Amino acid sequence: MPEHIAIIDLGSNTTRMVIYEYERDRYFRLLDEIREVVRLREGMGRTNVLRAAAIQRAINAMRMFKELVEDTHVDEVIAVATSAVRDAVNRDTFLARIHAETGWELRMLSGEEEGYYGALGAVNATCLRSGFVLDLGGGSVQITEVREGLPGRTISLPLGALRLTELFLSPDRISPEQTASLRAFIREQLAEVDWFKARPGDTLVAIGGAIRNLGKIDQVRKHYPLDSIHGYRFAREDIAALADELWRYSLKKRRNVRGLRADRADIMPAAAIAYDELLRHSGFDGLIISRPGLREGLFFDHFLSHLPQPLFPDLRQFSILSLARIFGYDDPHSHHVAFLAGRLFDDLQSVHGLDASYRELLWAAGILHDVGAIINYPYHHRHSYYIILNYTLYGYTPRELALIALIARFHRSKGNPKPRELAPILTREDVRALPILCGMIRLAEYLERGRRQVIRDLRCHVDVDNGWMQIEALAAGNAAIELWEAERNLEVLSRALGLEVELVEGVWVGE
Amino acid sequence: MPEHIAIIDLGSNTTRMVIYEYERDRYFRLLDEIREVVRLREGMGRTNVLRAAAIQRAINAMRMFKELVEDTHVDEVIAVATSAVRDAVNRDTFLARIHAETGWELRMLSGEEEGYYGALGAVNATCLRSGFVLDLGGGSVQITEVREGLPGRTISLPLGALRLTELFLSPDRISPEQTASLRAFIREQLAEVDWFKARPGDTLVAIGGAIRNLGKIDQVRKHYPLDSIHGYRFAREDIAALADELWRYSLKKRRNVRGLRADRADIMPAAAIAYDELLRHSGFDGLIISRPGLREGLFFDHFLSHLPQPLFPDLRQFSILSLARIFGYDDPHSHHVAFLAGRLFDDLQSVHGLDASYRELLWAAGILHDVGAIINYPYHHRHSYYIILNYTLYGYTPRELALIALIARFHRSKGNPKPRELAPILTREDVRALPILCGMIRLAEYLERGRRQVIRDLRCHVDVDNGWMQIEALAAGNAAIELWEAERNLEVLSRALGLEVELVEGVWVGE
Repeated sequence: MPEHIAIIDLGSNTTRMVIYEYERDRYFRLLDEIREVVRLREGMGRTNVLRAAAIQRAINAMRMFKELVEDTHVDEVIAVATSAVRDAVNRDTFLARIHAETGWELRMLSGEEEGYYGALGAVNATCLRSGFVLDLGGGSVQITEVREGLPGRTISLPLGALRLTELFLSPDRISPEQTASLRAFIREQLAEVDWFKARPGDTLVAIGGAIRNLGKIDQVRKHYPLDSIHGYRFAREDIAALADELWRYSLKKRRNVRGLRADRADIMPAAAIAYDELLRHSGFDGLIISRPGLREGLFFDHFLSHLPQPLFPDLRQFSILSLARIFGYDDPHSHHVAFLAGRLFDDLQSVHGLDASYRELLWAAGILHDVGAIINYPYHHRHSYYIILNYTLYGYTPRELALIALIARFHRSKGNPKPRELAPILTREDVRALPILCGMIRLAEYLERGRRQVIRDLRCHVDVDNGWMQIEALAAGNAAIELWEAERNLEVLSRALGLEVELVEGVWVGE
Repeated sequence: MPEHIAIIDLGSNTTRMVIYEYERDRYFRLLDEIREVVRLREGMGRTNVLRAAAIQRAINAMRMFKELVEDTHVDEVIAVATSAVRDAVNRDTFLARIHAETGWELRMLSGEEEGYYGALGAVNATCLRSGFVLDLGGGSVQITEVREGLPGRTISLPLGALRLTELFLSPDRISPEQTASLRAFIREQLAEVDWFKARPGDTLVAIGGAIRNLGKIDQVRKHYPLDSIHGYRFAREDIAALADELWRYSLKKRRNVRGLRADRADIMPAAAIAYDELLRHSGFDGLIISRPGLREGLFFDHFLSHLPQPLFPDLRQFSILSLARIFGYDDPHSHHVAFLAGRLFDDLQSVHGLDASYRELLWAAGILHDVGAIINYPYHHRHSYYIILNYTLYGYTPRELALIALIARFHRSKGNPKPRELAPILTREDVRALPILCGMIRLAEYLERGRRQVIRDLRCHVDVDNGWMQIEALAAGNAAIELWEAERNLEVLSRALGLEVELVEGVWVGE
């Protein structure tokens, strides 16, 4: 039976409740998300007193979440507060008031804990092994070092976008002097963090609403072909350009910047400038945006609590199988198509010369090739493509996601496999690989046409010099339909490899 | 537990096996479809002898289907043969041979039965109440009259596309004299069918691969925005134009006509000419294409066998609920959103003046608004749109489908509801209705934000003269979150109706 957990995060700018459905070791999915712009930090300025109106807004939001949780099927609630509460001189009375009004004990995260959980969310969604996670919120920024996949050293600095805006920038028209003071303050704060420096092989991952919104502006400008922000690579020069652009606009004009959320227009100049300074200080040439962050880190900490460390042992595999399970396609047919396609990849290694990373993407597409059938059978390959592109597969880059979706797309259908609108995010080698991988998955699919694993295995024999190859399909029983259908679907592979392909029925004689 | 049934149809040109999964009164879905171009009629010409090669191809196909059915979870098999077998002088020996080779007793359908089941498939997919169903296959055409939703009088004429091609047209280059003889033959055959005439209010529906392929060519030329052929309206002048065009091309050139299936290129000139003559004879100004036909009719006859007649009592409602069930959204929340949206529609009737047909589409969108959440929560409204457009909802026209999808699309999201790429298939009134209906569903969604039916009902009070209205949300308990969220989502409805909207909390005091 699926379980349900609510995670509530009372931040400086926004408070959110997310509800996850999950079965441990099987899958999880986001069921609901409610977001309120509470602006708990509003008016705190340098006094560090939570203001009456902000307190009231926070209590209202918490009351609503409480009611909702009580009326729905939630088994567990994790509720945390971050920097606005942490910094407040009246935090104890505030937390007591929340408790009196809702019965909830909000867990106040220390800066280190906030950094840890945020990084845990990012690591479990991006395969980050070494580098840093940045979480710039309303009140603070957390910088967390990641080594061997685990969050380690962390620091929380008072560089949140709402706080910086209140301290340094006019609400509407911002002056050059204000941005200069702002930059000087940030540099001063960063000066002591000498360990936040890019080392060879390091990656910088950023989480939080501010970077997502900045990234969205960049995506719009670049006509990026995917809807998702997760995994998006944001180059240092593009962040620098936004940092130098947004503050020059009036608040009204900022609200009309394409991609920018109107309710964040006031704090985005400070956010862009802060990221610019963070990159300059650390020496990274860009960052990767992770959608999952603090809330997801808290969720993963719970979801993976039965493991020695709260890390997915194989995140990429789990992502693929989790999607397949949600759509009911974690079945013998999908696994067998993935297996046969992998066999083709291995046996034809000397012909195609593709590196092993493509083999993993071919496996993923094999597992997922039929997920679209839930929408409509006749065009299910197109629907699989749509689902793979729009379900967020943690652990894959957008480029890898595009390849998995395209390979699944062309497991059927007429016409040559082409990347079409996804071409801008593929490499030249990807474009060469695509028809080869599609030829393999298509042949695997038709050798498994009856969904009964009767073609147990296969062998390829290649004679490149004479321009032909033979595929021996090893049948454990009568496989007439598989051989018949496969015979008619050799041409994609044949064309891609530039070889004549002959298909021969062999007999499977066991391991 | 779902059941599985295989339906096999050995036609003159193509033989197909479809496998359906279903739970009676709940849902059905196509799980698999295998198509073989067996060309059973090939070479029969005027002799009416099934030829050796064709017999062998049919036996091979049936053997493959048989194996497949035995290796998969199919509870029942229905296998039928149509006109090629019916017409053959050696049909008994052929059927005996099939039986000997596969153990299957193929049921040979009479022309009347073929017409009946084909029409049953079409009627249960299009809401056809009065008119005719045409099924032009490889060997014959069935004309079936439909009155009060039931197939009645039917005739089978030897006007199948493969037969006509063999009798009248050269395989490659066709002469004007050949088409003239072909037309004369068709007219002669139709002369006696004096009851096949359009009466006021009648609709003509066509089924079968030939009309689907002709329709596809027309869709490509018209840049039709949907992928589906089902429900497509094909105008008489466009059919006439294709009938006058295709025969002029060589076989090779025909294969390159956009939208035309290469393996049908030989028979499409005859098919187009036959449809042209059928429309001229009957006086219809166009036809509606139904994807479901004979096989689906056989399926519906089984699926609905517990009812007095094998007709869906309410096809449109069943389609919507069937989709919702497949995706797991036939739940109290979806129904309550549909209910509240309907309340708004009724109470605001005097303001919007929309006719009742829009209310039904609003209901459908209410039931389906969340189906996209299975793909990914944050953009689930867009995914609902995609799913509704691509799952084939029987009983709705493409225009209605577009409206349901658009209303579901805009139950959330920023920006004004606009038809975008679907505009070409909407009417001006639809374009006016869209923001109004979207305003209603959005308000209903937020009044049901907690998915707990706490806003049990609502009342609207309108003062058009003074430009305002009030919505009284009747709460059975604390509905803070619903009122809070609804308050922030009044603007779409307010703008669409040109009225200020105020939201007031009322107390629900029971029926």
